[in-house]
Amino acid sequence: MAAASARQVNIAIIGAGGVGKCFLSQLEQLAARRPSPKLVLTYICTSKKALYSTDHVAISLSNIPSSLASSQQAPLPLPKLVDFLSTSGSKTVLVDNTSSQDVADAYPIFLSRGISVVTPNKKAFSSSYKLWQDIFAAAEQSGAKVFHESSVGAGLPVISTLKDLVDTGDEVTKIEGVFSGTMSFLFNSFAPTSGSGGKWSAEVKKAKELGYTEPDPRDDLNGLDVARKLTILARLAGLPVESPTSFPVQSLIPKELESVASGDEFLEKLPAFDAQMEETKAEAEKEGKVVRFVGSIDVTTKQVKVGLEKFDLSHPIAALKGSDNIISFYTRRYGSNPLIIQGAGAGGDVTAMGVTSDLLKVLSQIA
Amino acid sequence: MAAASARQVNIAIIGAGGVGKCFLSQLEQLAARRPSPKLVLTYICTSKKALYSTDHVAISLSNIPSSLASSQQAPLPLPKLVDFLSTSGSKTVLVDNTSSQDVADAYPIFLSRGISVVTPNKKAFSSSYKLWQDIFAAAEQSGAKVFHESSVGAGLPVISTLKDLVDTGDEVTKIEGVFSGTMSFLFNSFAPTSGSGGKWSAEVKKAKELGYTEPDPRDDLNGLDVARKLTILARLAGLPVESPTSFPVQSLIPKELESVASGDEFLEKLPAFDAQMEETKAEAEKEGKVVRFVGSIDVTTKQVKVGLEKFDLSHPIAALKGSDNIISFYTRRYGSNPLIIQGAGAGGDVTAMGVTSDLLKVLSQIA
Repeated sequence: MAAASARQVNIAIIGAGGVGKCFLSQLEQLAARRPSPKLVLTYICTSKKALYSTDHVAISLSNIPSSLASSQQAPLPLPKLVDFLSTSGSKTVLVDNTSSQDVADAYPIFLSRGISVVTPNKKAFSSSYKLWQDIFAAAEQSGAKVFHESSVGAGLPVISTLKDLVDTGDEVTKIEGVFSGTMSFLFNSFAPTSGSGGKWSAEVKKAKELGYTEPDPRDDLNGLDVARKLTILARLAGLPVESPTSFPVQSLIPKELESVASGDEFLEKLPAFDAQMEETKAEAEKEGKVVRFVGSIDVTTKQVKVGLEKFDLSHPIAALKGSDNIISFYTRRYGSNPLIIQGAGAGGDVTAMGVTSDLLKVLSQIA
Repeated sequence: MAAASARQVNIAIIGAGGVGKCFLSQLEQLAARRPSPKLVLTYICTSKKALYSTDHVAISLSNIPSSLASSQQAPLPLPKLVDFLSTSGSKTVLVDNTSSQDVADAYPIFLSRGISVVTPNKKAFSSSYKLWQDIFAAAEQSGAKVFHESSVGAGLPVISTLKDLVDTGDEVTKIEGVFSGTMSFLFNSFAPTSGSGGKWSAEVKKAKELGYTEPDPRDDLNGLDVARKLTILARLAGLPVESPTSFPVQSLIPKELESVASGDEFLEKLPAFDAQMEETKAEAEKEGKVVRFVGSIDVTTKQVKVGLEKFDLSHPIAALKGSDNIISFYTRRYGSNPLIIQGAGAGGDVTAMGVTSDLLKVLSQIA
């Protein structure tokens, strides 16, 4: 490779939704701030549209959403995209800002062709254990890099911290925390440490109105999002967890409402089940505690689980605010008091921040 | 450089005290675990003794403390050490596990000769602003790396997180926290959130007996250690703080005891001044608060300060346990709830962990 192209890194982006738009704005500022390596956007697509030229000419970083909207180009099929990117003559980083399983499934091919990957896409690292192994084997073999800080806790330094603990030889014995901004908001409102909180169904409705839940709140209440994050952390801690459904995950969807047709119908019928949650709350209160939806990984006994647990009012998990995440790492070196990381674990800007800082890490290693 | 030597990195170490010994043990395990790049120790010294051979033969990583004790070699003067390391033909990382100003002052020379530096040495980054500028200018010019995670909060990801925030374009508006394990222990015991706590002088005596203070506790109580850490963080956040004495730092040493001859005499005479601290504590209690020794950086108003402040019982700073540190980053992206990092901020093993993870970062970038 020519010396000149060593100081240029090509960027390809899939996805321009909430996180994608924030990332584009951060990338534009980054490229303006840092002259070296030169960052050149050569491809960007949504599920319907794309921008690229066959000779890899740089795409302007300003007003991409409107350029995309008026584009006549369709996205390249993934195998063609791999070919396109690997013939540019420059080192290339693929930024996957989707939550697509199809894109995730293609990471091993991108990586084996020397294309580095940064992404908040949880599915790549929390689906089958085989995909996990294929991804890291491909990276190892080609030297391409793969970073996914924002797949857990958005921009919070959760994955990098766990990697540092493991890589420097500490023994992580337990990881525990609140891993869902939605669940955090719901329980901090439903069972606050002071005051009495609202009815469960009313809090779910409010969370949806504030945009804190998925369009169908059941996609948060089934616990799968938290299970995916735990799968990722457990694997990084050395447990070969097969999938996010291979350990106990408590769903907060009443059995009777699992199959109702829509999220709206679910919300309409949820009040009939408030008594159940009220009872859980009262039970905790009797012990001077509050109930929270947490995930935990006991590395020693190899147990991973997701569900409701009770916490003393003085426990950091009970004292959480708003939609914050909190993650506690218990390790041999840190002893009885864990290393704790806390803060917003969702939102476009902070999620994109994790992607951008991953991109900077890749650049420091390949450019 | 030959391809073979590109996969070998030489390590030189200064210091084999508390942190140094823990680092050596982590390095030995690391070298055994990771075949590539090959880590070759070519130099190690304490203030009196050294181990090295003029032809850069690898020093065995086992039993270094006893090899050092029986060595007849004296340490190389720093300029000679620079020459020695830069003629090895391999990329080299200097690990400075001292708190020596002299070694810190030499970083620009090491870096300008292409030798990367990792260190917990606060003095390098908290003395004159000119030294700070010289260090980073030398690294920029040569491409050598410099990392110092453990200079604030030991192994906690404080510096890397702040750098990520800044580098990805977030605006840090305020940094606040408890930055001293000693101060944390003292105030968590003296003014606990429940119960009444002990007399101030008794708590200082106990902390010293438990090994939580410097040999002369005044070296903790003068606030300089916290001021040094704040200087580092403020500079990383963009404030050109001149030195750790260029902003208000509250000393907890009574004026009358500043010049007593020894730490023992200080401890003997301290009980006469308990009333002062008792009054401070009572004042906070009247407002339903507790007193804590904190540092804060208001990036917007450019104000840095260190000293006693009062906190609500529910505030994370009040709820701290043992000798834990807590650091809160308030930023534009994170909004009203800060990004918080908490855990042990002192101790040989966790400090060495920060050094080891810095070494891994350097290796990923140069090897």
